[in-house]
Amino acid sequence: MQRRNPQLNKNGELIHLLSTEGLSREILTQILDTAANFVSVSSRDVKKVPLLRGKSVFNLFFENSTRTRTTFEIAATRLSADVINLDIARSSTAKGESLLDTIANLSAMAADIFVVRHSESGAPYLISQHVAPHVHVVNAGDGRHAHPTQGLLDMYTIRHYKKDFTQLSVAIVGDVLHSRVARSDIHALTTLGCPDVRVVGPRTLVPSDLSHMGVRVCHTLEEGIKDCDVVITLRLQNERMSGALLPSSQEYFKSFGLTPERLRWAKDDAIVMHPGPINRGVEIDSAVVDGPQSVILPQVTYGIAVRMAVMGIVAGNEA
Amino acid sequence: MQRRNPQLNKNGELIHLLSTEGLSREILTQILDTAANFVSVSSRDVKKVPLLRGKSVFNLFFENSTRTRTTFEIAATRLSADVINLDIARSSTAKGESLLDTIANLSAMAADIFVVRHSESGAPYLISQHVAPHVHVVNAGDGRHAHPTQGLLDMYTIRHYKKDFTQLSVAIVGDVLHSRVARSDIHALTTLGCPDVRVVGPRTLVPSDLSHMGVRVCHTLEEGIKDCDVVITLRLQNERMSGALLPSSQEYFKSFGLTPERLRWAKDDAIVMHPGPINRGVEIDSAVVDGPQSVILPQVTYGIAVRMAVMGIVAGNEA
Amino acid sequence: MQRRNPQLNKNGELIHLLSTEGLSREILTQILDTAANFVSVSSRDVKKVPLLRGKSVFNLFFENSTRTRTTFEIAATRLSADVINLDIARSSTAKGESLLDTIANLSAMAADIFVVRHSESGAPYLISQHVAPHVHVVNAGDGRHAHPTQGLLDMYTIRHYKKDFTQLSVAIVGDVLHSRVARSDIHALTTLGCPDVRVVGPRTLVPSDLSHMGVRVCHTLEEGIKDCDVVITLRLQNERMSGALLPSSQEYFKSFGLTPERLRWAKDDAIVMHPGPINRGVEIDSAVVDGPQSVILPQVTYGIAVRMAVMGIVAGNEA
Repeated sequence: MQRRNPQLNKNGELIHLLSTEGLSREILTQILDTAANFVSVSSRDVKKVPLLRGKSVFNLFFENSTRTRTTFEIAATRLSADVINLDIARSSTAKGESLLDTIANLSAMAADIFVVRHSESGAPYLISQHVAPHVHVVNAGDGRHAHPTQGLLDMYTIRHYKKDFTQLSVAIVGDVLHSRVARSDIHALTTLGCPDVRVVGPRTLVPSDLSHMGVRVCHTLEEGIKDCDVVITLRLQNERMSGALLPSSQEYFKSFGLTPERLRWAKDDAIVMHPGPINRGVEIDSAVVDGPQSVILPQVTYGIAVRMAVMGIVAGNEA
Repeated sequence: MQRRNPQLNKNGELIHLLSTEGLSREILTQILDTAANFVSVSSRDVKKVPLLRGKSVFNLFFENSTRTRTTFEIAATRLSADVINLDIARSSTAKGESLLDTIANLSAMAADIFVVRHSESGAPYLISQHVAPHVHVVNAGDGRHAHPTQGLLDMYTIRHYKKDFTQLSVAIVGDVLHSRVARSDIHALTTLGCPDVRVVGPRTLVPSDLSHMGVRVCHTLEEGIKDCDVVITLRLQNERMSGALLPSSQEYFKSFGLTPERLRWAKDDAIVMHPGPINRGVEIDSAVVDGPQSVILPQVTYGIAVRMAVMGIVAGNEA
Repeated sequence: MQRRNPQLNKNGELIHLLSTEGLSREILTQILDTAANFVSVSSRDVKKVPLLRGKSVFNLFFENSTRTRTTFEIAATRLSADVINLDIARSSTAKGESLLDTIANLSAMAADIFVVRHSESGAPYLISQHVAPHVHVVNAGDGRHAHPTQGLLDMYTIRHYKKDFTQLSVAIVGDVLHSRVARSDIHALTTLGCPDVRVVGPRTLVPSDLSHMGVRVCHTLEEGIKDCDVVITLRLQNERMSGALLPSSQEYFKSFGLTPERLRWAKDDAIVMHPGPINRGVEIDSAVVDGPQSVILPQVTYGIAVRMAVMGIVAGNEA
């Protein structure tokens, strides 16, 4: 199919954020540059700009995630938008209404932005194909597919500390196979010109065929983070720790847990990132989380600015 | 009892909205005219007016309804009010506190408007009799009794498309017996001068004694919607579809489901309405929902404006 | 340990409100005087002041309490702050994240105030020791330890009706042993110079060793409220009413329930208070709740002003 990118209007401007895949370096850079302007807003005495005043942002969380919902709520509020939180899981879908009828109904209330979290990959795309032209869709995580604002805040953090993507080695460590964060990071890193992206973990979580994404697959931590500039540790989902994929969380930590000693394999000034919430002592040692190379809390801070940038940009472009 | 209408102050002005029953044509028309002014607000770039700035609207939902709660939250927000959502079901009533103590307590927080949803018929009336004079009560649906803002948005929609109530035939199809929407529609339609209101459905859901409400009772769809200007389809509650009242939802659709073919019994320019959420293929065929005569989504849009009008009017009148 | 009071900065100004214990008469009086200025705000047409405009207040309720959460939400909204409600019980802590990681994460979103409710005594203190310097912590009730805004609104109410603490007799009746409200009241009353504070109840709920708090222990209601100026009745928790501590709620009412007849033991102009929610007919008779000496609803009204004062004061002081 030779279709237009569903995230862009006919002028090539961003109208929905569904995935970092398929976005140009220019668009990604526009988002990061806009976010840079918003970082200062959250440190002001009055943490607000009037950009989205009188706009209605709907948080449509079909899957519960208080943390992510909160970051979008804060970002929208700081843009002066009105925010409506919809705990969709408990709501009309339970009455047998279809997803698209729910969406049509909410669109008719004159929504401007839908922030969508869904356990099914592709749900935000489906929604973006059916909303009225005045509505913009922002994916807040869909199944194993994508978590583009997490990917973008990771790019913002890397650019803040390392400036130039074209000279970097970045390692993504953990359950890459099931991670929408890893997928969004990989697409953004390769588009932004990062020449060396490695995915690191046991064969059950990092199969060799991931190399088709333009990354190097490593099955030992030493090889994976050797001389890296950036180490992104992923959260190990508890549900993977029993059964066929992993023997146990202690076993995982023994081979892939990031300790201060192992971190020395990376460059001296390497930064350590994590999307949260952290399992201390499983994928990462407490001494690393709280250590001088950790930029985990700055990631959270930049995440607000990146979400402000995304909402500000899409709301400013017409379908 | 020769009591004053509990919805009006001694000057005959609306201070609570509890039911469309007992409201004069003048009051109903005032609400619809005010709503007409607010329809444009939701299509503006900045979707806000300062009418209720600094007022506190409490959404008191003793019965869960995310959809209705959302419409009131949006309406209040667009009037610049502050909205507090109270999930009362999980709250102080669970600690054994009485309804009236909860209400007295919330009144003492200097509330301006209580939007009340309750499974018991009459609860909003009871509350309106006990609130402090500065508090206005808006019924957001009580038991089988009334859903006056739904009734009013239905009137707004009919007036928008058909202009003059005094020439219209309106059919209400479905579980009229248990429907607070039907009841609110019937009272509003007869007050507004509609000469031909029909209620349509099987005898178990539309008993003959409904005719005391000034409506014609019809037990076949053809008779019911013949030459109608407006067809209002009601949601068939799942809990009615098993047991004594109805053989099955397929059986219901066979006799009363609104299909494109059957819709031809009505006038060519008849409009089709539904309060939502829709059971496609039960009370109404998808082709009708999405067809040219459907005004189901405009109903939702007008519903915001009608709720803005109701809250703006009651808050402006003194007890 | 000779540590600085954790609620004060090095200039002795209030930066967190954790307990009424350890606060000077000057600080308590500053809060009550500031609240007096805010009482009028809630009776204005536009119930808002811009004091916290653009500030972010996070309601962190690790224990559910819709009523208390609502009072803080209203207070923050009337100061023009942006409020984020976090139902922490259902959220990231459920994913195994530690309390301090959750707090660090939320701090990084540029929070200004955390309002904390927790079932564990000391949790707000622990949080206040770990937040970034720009964050202020307000205790909204922790275990059996403290409920300082309830204590302060009780002081506001007493001062409003009785003016001078140094001439008063105050009785606190009920389950003093398990009550964070009683503890906060006692500390505030003694600091404000109240010469006669009595705690009243059966030996199982009011043990003799409470006298170390500077109060008189009374085991009969007559002795306890004899010639009192103020009677504070506490809610009897249902979970205490079975088993070892109490024979039954009827038995409790027979001995300690406050009836109009028994209230005559107190001074003629004594006021009756209750923190809510009320168990009518258990700790207090309906005729007293609704009677002329009851100031239970004014307590609620003053509670909003006191919470506005506390948030306004702490947000204005630097760590």
